[in-house]
Amino acid sequence: MKQSHLFTKTRREVPSDEVAKNAQLLIRAGFVHKEMAGVYSMLPLGLRTLRKIEAIVREEMDGIGAQETRMATLHPSEPWKMTGGWDGVDVLFKLQSRTEKEYAIGQSEEEIVTPIVGEYARSYKELPLMVYQIGQKYRDELRAKSGIMRGREFGMKDMYSFHTSQEDFDRFYAIAKEAYLRVYTRTGLVAKVTEASGGSFSEKISYEFMVLTDAGEDTILYCSACDYCTNVEVAGDLKEGENCPKCGGSKLTKAVASEVGNVFDLGQRYPKALNYTYKAEDGSDYYPIMGCYGIGTTRLMGVAVETFADEKGMVWPKSIAPAQVHLIELSGGDAAVKAKADELYADLMKAGVEVLYDERDMRAGEKFADSDLIGIPLRVVVGKKTIETGQFECVRRQTGESFLLPDAAAITKDALYV
Amino acid sequence: MKQSHLFTKTRREVPSDEVAKNAQLLIRAGFVHKEMAGVYSMLPLGLRTLRKIEAIVREEMDGIGAQETRMATLHPSEPWKMTGGWDGVDVLFKLQSRTEKEYAIGQSEEEIVTPIVGEYARSYKELPLMVYQIGQKYRDELRAKSGIMRGREFGMKDMYSFHTSQEDFDRFYAIAKEAYLRVYTRTGLVAKVTEASGGSFSEKISYEFMVLTDAGEDTILYCSACDYCTNVEVAGDLKEGENCPKCGGSKLTKAVASEVGNVFDLGQRYPKALNYTYKAEDGSDYYPIMGCYGIGTTRLMGVAVETFADEKGMVWPKSIAPAQVHLIELSGGDAAVKAKADELYADLMKAGVEVLYDERDMRAGEKFADSDLIGIPLRVVVGKKTIETGQFECVRRQTGESFLLPDAAAITKDALYV
Repeated sequence: MKQSHLFTKTRREVPSDEVAKNAQLLIRAGFVHKEMAGVYSMLPLGLRTLRKIEAIVREEMDGIGAQETRMATLHPSEPWKMTGGWDGVDVLFKLQSRTEKEYAIGQSEEEIVTPIVGEYARSYKELPLMVYQIGQKYRDELRAKSGIMRGREFGMKDMYSFHTSQEDFDRFYAIAKEAYLRVYTRTGLVAKVTEASGGSFSEKISYEFMVLTDAGEDTILYCSACDYCTNVEVAGDLKEGENCPKCGGSKLTKAVASEVGNVFDLGQRYPKALNYTYKAEDGSDYYPIMGCYGIGTTRLMGVAVETFADEKGMVWPKSIAPAQVHLIELSGGDAAVKAKADELYADLMKAGVEVLYDERDMRAGEKFADSDLIGIPLRVVVGKKTIETGQFECVRRQTGESFLLPDAAAITKDALYV
Repeated sequence: MKQSHLFTKTRREVPSDEVAKNAQLLIRAGFVHKEMAGVYSMLPLGLRTLRKIEAIVREEMDGIGAQETRMATLHPSEPWKMTGGWDGVDVLFKLQSRTEKEYAIGQSEEEIVTPIVGEYARSYKELPLMVYQIGQKYRDELRAKSGIMRGREFGMKDMYSFHTSQEDFDRFYAIAKEAYLRVYTRTGLVAKVTEASGGSFSEKISYEFMVLTDAGEDTILYCSACDYCTNVEVAGDLKEGENCPKCGGSKLTKAVASEVGNVFDLGQRYPKALNYTYKAEDGSDYYPIMGCYGIGTTRLMGVAVETFADEKGMVWPKSIAPAQVHLIELSGGDAAVKAKADELYADLMKAGVEVLYDERDMRAGEKFADSDLIGIPLRVVVGKKTIETGQFECVRRQTGESFLLPDAAAITKDALYV
C-alpha cells in the first residue's frame, strides 16, 4: 500500500478529549476515528490490524471444533423477556420502532444462540456443540474513557458451548483455555487465568484471562511454578512473596493486568429459560450445560497498543501489525533511488510481504517520526547510500536494532519468518 | 468439512411463516436461521456463501482504488440532526439510553463518513477519494416478507466518493459501474443499469443495478444493442418491441428484475449540512460533490437463490457456493469404500478444493436429496462401483450432466478451473 494513497494522515497533537493512551496513539496514527465517547470507526490501518486479530481468533476457535456463524444483532424482545435480561441487563440497548415490535441490539448472544442450537441439537448424540461468531456488540455504558478498551460499540468473538454434563463442560473448558492462551501468545501478549465471580451473567464460577500490562485495571497474584493466579480483590489475606497456596513451589508475584477474555459457566440457566432440552440416552429430556467464552477483539487491539507502545509511538507485534515492512524512500528527487525503492516494493509485494510504502515527497525526519508512530515492525530505508553500497538499511521498531540486508529475498525472510 | 460435524440439518417441510422462496430454501437447507420477520442469522453454510460474496465485492472495490474501513454502527444523533435525517428518515432506528445521549443505528453512513473524510481530505490534492465498508445495516421496515432480500438487519457494502467537480464524479461513476457489473457477472448474474429518481437520499439522479430474475419486484425495458435500460415505471409510453430510443439499433426487451445495487449522486448535500469544505487550487473553499454506492450482500445472496433454484433445491454458482464439491460416500459399512472416500476427501482438501463431505450413515436417497437442496456445483459419489471401476461418478448440480473422472487431480481441475 502506497502511503500517498492512504487517505488518513498522522497528527502530532494529542487529542484533547482522550485520556487513554491507546486512543491517543491510534487517533494520532490514523488507525481509528472517534465518533463519540466509546465509539470508534476503524480506518484502513486499524482495520488491517483488527482483521489480523480476528483471523488468529478464528483459526484457534476453528481448531477446537467450534463452528462459525454470524448471528443477528437486532434482537426480538421475546427471548430477552424469557431470560429476564430485558429488565435485568442494564447495558442492554433497546430500540424505538415504528411498529409495535420491541427490539434490542446484542450485547451478548445467549438469547439468540440457545434457540438456534436448540433447534438442531435435540439428542445427546449431537452434543457437545460449540458455536461462535466475530462481530460488533453494543453496551449502554454510563462512562467510556478507556479508548477502544471499553466501548459502547466494540468488536468481540463470542463462543457458546453446550454439554450433557458438568464433566464434559470442564473437559472442553480446559481445551478452550489452551486455545485462548495461544491467541494471546500469538498476539505477543502474556496472559494468566484467574477465577472470579460471574457478574450479571451467572451465579456460577467464571474465568478471566488477564494480560500483564501496566495499563491494566486489575491487580493479580500469580505463581510462576504452576498455573495459580488470582485477582487481589478475591485473594483474601494472600500477599506477594507468600508461597503459592496451590503448589507451594514458588512465591507469588504481583502484577497489574487487563482482562482480555472470559469464560462463564452458565449452567442450565439459558436452556431452562428458553425451553431447550435434549433427549438423553435413557430417553429422558434434560437441559444442557452451557458455557460462554468471550474475547474482545478491539479491546485486545487496545491492550496491545498500551502494552508495547513507547515514547515515540506504537510498536506492533509482527502477527497483528498492519504491515510487516514500512518501506521508506528518501530519494529527494533522485530518479535512481526512486526506481530502486519502487523495485523493492514490487519485489516484496510479489513475495507476499505486506508493505506500507512511504513514497511521499517529505523530509526524512517527518517520515521517520510517522514511521515510529505507526509502529510497523521492520523499517527499510532506500536512499542514496543504498545505490552506493547495494545494501538496504533496516531498523527494528521494537528494539531499535539496525542492520543491512542485501536484497528483497533477505528482507522477505526477515519480515515473514524471523 | 465433514457433514456429520456440521451442526445444522436439512428439513423437508417448508417453513409455514415464509412466503419468499429464498428464505424457504435457505432455512430448509440450514443456511440461515430466522429470528423474526426480516432478521436472519447466518449459519455455517450461509456464512461461507456470504463471505464469498463479500470477498468478490471487496476485490472489485479495492480494484477501483476505494479504501476499506469499518465505520461505527452506533451513531451519535448530532450529525443526523444536522442533515435532517433524525426526523426525516423514517426507517432510522433510534435507541433508548440510560444516559442523556441520543443514538441511532446505521441504515446508511453519510453522517459518519463525511466528517471522517472531511477531517483528512482538506485540499483538492486529496480528492477524489473513495471509502467503503462491508457490514450490517438496520432499517425499521414496516413489512419484511422477502426473506433475506429485504431485511430489518442486512449485509451491505456501502461506498462513498468525494469529488471536486461533477465531471470527476461522472468519470468515477463510469468506473464504478463497470466494477459493479463485474461483481454481478462473477456471481453468475446478469445485470442492467437503469436511471431512477433518488428516493429519500437525494433530489438528483440515481442509478439502479437490476438483475434479471423472475423473482424480481420491478419490470424493465432494455436494449440488447446498447446499454439503454429503463424501469417501466418511468418509461412513459415506451413499450416492448419498440425501437431503442438511444441507439435505434434494436427493439426493446421487457424483463422482470430485482434491484441489487444502486448509486446516488448526492451532490453537495451532506458536505454542506456537515460543514465539510476543501481548499481548491484557487485558494477558495468549496463543498465536494459526493456519491453513494450500495450493494446489498445478503440481498445478492437471496437473489442468487431465487434466480438459480429449481424444484429440487438451490443451485449455487461455483464462485459463491459454500463449497465446490459435495463428496458423498455410499459405503453402507464397506471399509474399502469408506477408505477410498476418506482418501479422496484428504486429497481434495490438500489441493485447495472446498469439500462438504457427507460421511453420515444414511440412505443414498436421503443423501442425494440433501445434496440437491444444498446445491453445491459438483457432486462426487464414492460407492462400491468406484472400487470396481476406479472411476468417480460426478454430477453437475446445475445441468444434471453426469460423467466419470479417474482421480483427485481431475476432480480438482474440474472443481477449481472448469
